[in-house]
Amino acid sequence: MPREITAYSNPLIKRVRNLREKRHRREEGLFLAEGLRILTEARESGRLPEYLFFARDSADHKLVRTLIADVEAAGGEAIETVPDILSKLSGKDNPQAVVGVFAEFATSLDALDRNAADIWLVAERLRDPGNLGTILRTGDAVGAGGLILIGECVDPFSLEAVRASMGALFTVPVVQAEWGAFLRWLRAGPGQLVGLSLDTDSDYRSATYVSPTFLLTGNEAQGMPADYAAACDLLVKIPMLGKADSLNAAVATAVMAYEVLAQRRADPSRG
Amino acid sequence: MPREITAYSNPLIKRVRNLREKRHRREEGLFLAEGLRILTEARESGRLPEYLFFARDSADHKLVRTLIADVEAAGGEAIETVPDILSKLSGKDNPQAVVGVFAEFATSLDALDRNAADIWLVAERLRDPGNLGTILRTGDAVGAGGLILIGECVDPFSLEAVRASMGALFTVPVVQAEWGAFLRWLRAGPGQLVGLSLDTDSDYRSATYVSPTFLLTGNEAQGMPADYAAACDLLVKIPMLGKADSLNAAVATAVMAYEVLAQRRADPSRG
Repeated sequence: MPREITAYSNPLIKRVRNLREKRHRREEGLFLAEGLRILTEARESGRLPEYLFFARDSADHKLVRTLIADVEAAGGEAIETVPDILSKLSGKDNPQAVVGVFAEFATSLDALDRNAADIWLVAERLRDPGNLGTILRTGDAVGAGGLILIGECVDPFSLEAVRASMGALFTVPVVQAEWGAFLRWLRAGPGQLVGLSLDTDSDYRSATYVSPTFLLTGNEAQGMPADYAAACDLLVKIPMLGKADSLNAAVATAVMAYEVLAQRRADPSRG
Repeated sequence: MPREITAYSNPLIKRVRNLREKRHRREEGLFLAEGLRILTEARESGRLPEYLFFARDSADHKLVRTLIADVEAAGGEAIETVPDILSKLSGKDNPQAVVGVFAEFATSLDALDRNAADIWLVAERLRDPGNLGTILRTGDAVGAGGLILIGECVDPFSLEAVRASMGALFTVPVVQAEWGAFLRWLRAGPGQLVGLSLDTDSDYRSATYVSPTFLLTGNEAQGMPADYAAACDLLVKIPMLGKADSLNAAVATAVMAYEVLAQRRADPSRG
């Protein structure tokens, strides 16, 4: 039977609200995800929140009822509350019907099976949470094995990243690693490291990708360091006809990933 | 000789700060753009701000000096200020060195030369300013003739859209039109209308695009209305292997646009 919280001063509300800050997420090992679509994606991927906040008037919704039942069966707590509090938890004027508090999870390089997928995404010093979430969403769409975050990246458990991922945070494994450790792991088995670069004549459509392909995208403003580029098996560029000579990092990653996917679909034997 | 403003209570500061709200932008016919990169892009595209705010300690930067000189030569005003005020104008903790206040500009369908480009982007009820800016940036990169916004879209002059466009707002013409007017204009000349859809078996890589190609992307959450899809010459889908069955709207637009561009580069005769 769900308990009810309607007072903003409730200590749990305060604690959950704090999870919008990285420091509190690290301390608690918890993060926030909101919205029926994302929480249903999570549930279907085997992840249930420890706390599930839901608006009183959404409790009749079938998916909300399923979530409540599953959360309670798994030992979590479902908490009925009011739109105003949901709004305060997520920092949005139009709150979602549900907000979940999940235990953070992490994958290590050693836990990845590189042969389980043709495409892997690697991002270096990614700074924008929207880009991170969007790249996860693309990763889900192209069937990527995972997203490997190199160096100081934005927190994949930030509310903005979770939001932009539309649930892909729960379906695409994320690993955080240092460059050296990643490179050692990569070179211990098969894998083509393909770097996106402006300093090459190799067009991304003319290159041949070999599975498993690891697509490396550099920092939004600076691209990747020279020694990272030098470590790649292949550098390719996406043509840009305009004046700005730059694409959004998540867009460039997607254009590349879809080219690799198209090659795999046309010639699965290289997979 | 630039005047100096260091008091937050200055009425001009208040007025400029208000431009972060759409209502004030419409009233004043002005909008904000920030950062040396974006303002330089604007200058090179022939657009100078009416007011240019710059941080005192950036006045020695060559690009800032060029901007100040050009703004003053064009009858605009360059205003020296402090980082705290720049921060308040843009709402960011780490302010850019320059903030510009530009006159809004608009293009009409009738002013577009459809034969001037192979690719045109059309977005319908686009709601996210980051997506709008990112689509403009992609439009710049693929050499799109312009972005046509159909129906109730987010304001292209919002600070977030301008930011995400990285200056492409100044290089890619933007038109706002109603669906009926757009369709009448489109059908009055050559043009293939290609809609991105989940309800088709046509793979985007197998389709043949004819110039000028108009790529129509629907609303982020709902896609496009059935009658819009019915009006398309061609519906194509991007394969999605994952669980979420969705791509970010700006990503989907870019994947499509780069396929059209690749076909044009491989076979310019259809252009």
